[in-house]
Amino acid sequence: MTDISKLGEFKLIDHLTKDIQIQNQSTKLGIGDDCAVMHYPDKEVLMTTDMLMEGVHFDLTYIDMQHLGYKSAMVNISDIFAMNGTPKQLLVSLAIDKRFKVEDMEAFYSGLQMACNKWHVDIVGGDTTSSRTGIAISITCIGEAKKEDIVYRSGAKDTDLICVSGDLGAAYMGLMLLEREKDVYYQQVDELNKKLKAAQKEQDNQLVEHLKKKLSELGNFQPDFAGKEYLLQRQLQTEARGDIIEKLQTANIHPTAMIDISDGLSSELLHICKQSKCGCRIYEKNLPIDYQTAVMAEELNMNVTTCALNGGEDYELLFTVPIPDHEKIQQIEGVRMIGHITKESLGAQLITRDNQEFTLRAQGWNPL
Amino acid sequence: MTDISKLGEFKLIDHLTKDIQIQNQSTKLGIGDDCAVMHYPDKEVLMTTDMLMEGVHFDLTYIDMQHLGYKSAMVNISDIFAMNGTPKQLLVSLAIDKRFKVEDMEAFYSGLQMACNKWHVDIVGGDTTSSRTGIAISITCIGEAKKEDIVYRSGAKDTDLICVSGDLGAAYMGLMLLEREKDVYYQQVDELNKKLKAAQKEQDNQLVEHLKKKLSELGNFQPDFAGKEYLLQRQLQTEARGDIIEKLQTANIHPTAMIDISDGLSSELLHICKQSKCGCRIYEKNLPIDYQTAVMAEELNMNVTTCALNGGEDYELLFTVPIPDHEKIQQIEGVRMIGHITKESLGAQLITRDNQEFTLRAQGWNPL
Repeated sequence: MTDISKLGEFKLIDHLTKDIQIQNQSTKLGIGDDCAVMHYPDKEVLMTTDMLMEGVHFDLTYIDMQHLGYKSAMVNISDIFAMNGTPKQLLVSLAIDKRFKVEDMEAFYSGLQMACNKWHVDIVGGDTTSSRTGIAISITCIGEAKKEDIVYRSGAKDTDLICVSGDLGAAYMGLMLLEREKDVYYQQVDELNKKLKAAQKEQDNQLVEHLKKKLSELGNFQPDFAGKEYLLQRQLQTEARGDIIEKLQTANIHPTAMIDISDGLSSELLHICKQSKCGCRIYEKNLPIDYQTAVMAEELNMNVTTCALNGGEDYELLFTVPIPDHEKIQQIEGVRMIGHITKESLGAQLITRDNQEFTLRAQGWNPL
Repeated sequence: MTDISKLGEFKLIDHLTKDIQIQNQSTKLGIGDDCAVMHYPDKEVLMTTDMLMEGVHFDLTYIDMQHLGYKSAMVNISDIFAMNGTPKQLLVSLAIDKRFKVEDMEAFYSGLQMACNKWHVDIVGGDTTSSRTGIAISITCIGEAKKEDIVYRSGAKDTDLICVSGDLGAAYMGLMLLEREKDVYYQQVDELNKKLKAAQKEQDNQLVEHLKKKLSELGNFQPDFAGKEYLLQRQLQTEARGDIIEKLQTANIHPTAMIDISDGLSSELLHICKQSKCGCRIYEKNLPIDYQTAVMAEELNMNVTTCALNGGEDYELLFTVPIPDHEKIQQIEGVRMIGHITKESLGAQLITRDNQEFTLRAQGWNPL
């Protein structure tokens, strides 16, 4: 592994960015001057930014640097799609502490680059600096859209159908799974350490050697994720749903409101209701939930509907369309109608399987 | 003081951003959706981003939250000016730990807003989140320029004059001053604590009380900055030199290359030389240095030229102009010609007062 101090800031940036090729006509100048330069004569410019902090938004015991780079880019690209735009450029700021080596940065950039290549996005600038402790990532994504194509959160109308792409709650279940396996690992380490201490006290050298060997074997601990691969993928390999945006365009469907689901369905639906000055009714039985999500929720003794409503990190698209689009939506694979928009005075309601009504809350929906 | 948890993320953002008024025609939508929306039909879009980490880029024992907000905005605005552009929009990401209260955030935002008001910049979006420890700030600034007006780092030509605005090294001397006063303070605290421990051991209650009183008085420690106000101002209240950009435009001067001085004159000059494929000669006797900078360097037994070359955080503009602009430049108050561009093979040279030549280095120029 190579120390970053061996290269220094300028050489590190050169090293990481030397292979970056500009793909978009709107990108006039990328990395290398005080600013990046872009040109958008016929389109609106969309801009979004997100900050990810170690220990708050990610845990490096779960996610490697390459997946982290990929996810950091994707969550920002997702915001451009959520306005019905096309992502075009990315600015990347990164602060790292002394733990990190040149190879870690290479892995992070290769993840970024994979996400950008998938959606033909140019990395045009950023900042690489040091932090006292932990890693901080700030990404800004720039996109374009024709003025008339932009979809805001504020356009939903009474009777519009509420649609959601993919399925919900899996990324959250993936996180729960990773946390459980981490706990299992540390419990095993703790137990062995306790036994080791006791053995050392009693000077049982044979047992000491045996326990030390067991501890070192634990370093290669491979948690068992069999049958739960989809949950891990949803947590670690976030995808922005540009494919859904393309399908909607092909089907000539123009959503009246749209948002991406980063904080959980309830929270995002409430954003749409607030900004569109409307209410909503969604149906528990219509919520798209993957089989693995349901199994994992049961294992953890959690309510799977709560996970789907409040889980977060799904990065699916939540959008509304006028009733006449009903049949066109049905034709689109991977989109589910989960309810409809109502008058504001009716509030935001979930209708359960047994026909009870509950008011949606931004955090921690609790049916009891 | 108000706990942030009392408001929650969404209400905090509402609270901080509710008074923000859009000032620019290019800003179509500010805070409140997945993205900000801008429109730049006739101009190039400039974009720059900077990350500031607590303990690396700033120390909250020196700088208050309002000045920190002001500085964070200004250093990004400065990058737009350095391309000869006009700053227009700002995206603000902020991660804070549990120490911070709503009032701290208000102070930070009021500083941001002051900087933005000065240059008519709209705050259009961002992200507010928590950090495990410390504060992280990431700002993205968007600006505009006509294509033919943009000044890159790469346009300097042999014989061009090298110019710099304002004076150099003062921000660095301001930092040294603040660090010295902090050291003085902690030395006093340490000494009193040692004496207190000894007095407690000897059970000298009268002395214990006296020392405790002295320690509590130290809490109101007011360092003596008399005669050094300019150095503090340069460190704590960074200004972007948009006034110089306006003067150059009025005088009909179009620089061939330009950069803002964030890492020190030497480092920035080497960027211009590298990207313009040229060399340079600058003259020690021409470097603009304020009287307070010189006095402080002497007090600290530092070489004032080294401070001016490598100090950093000046945020002055460094630019080159063709020889025929010589007289027009002389008319502009606050701009100094410090040397000229040469052929690449001649390298980057400093000519000292006693006519010796030294090769400029990016960090830590040492004439011995």
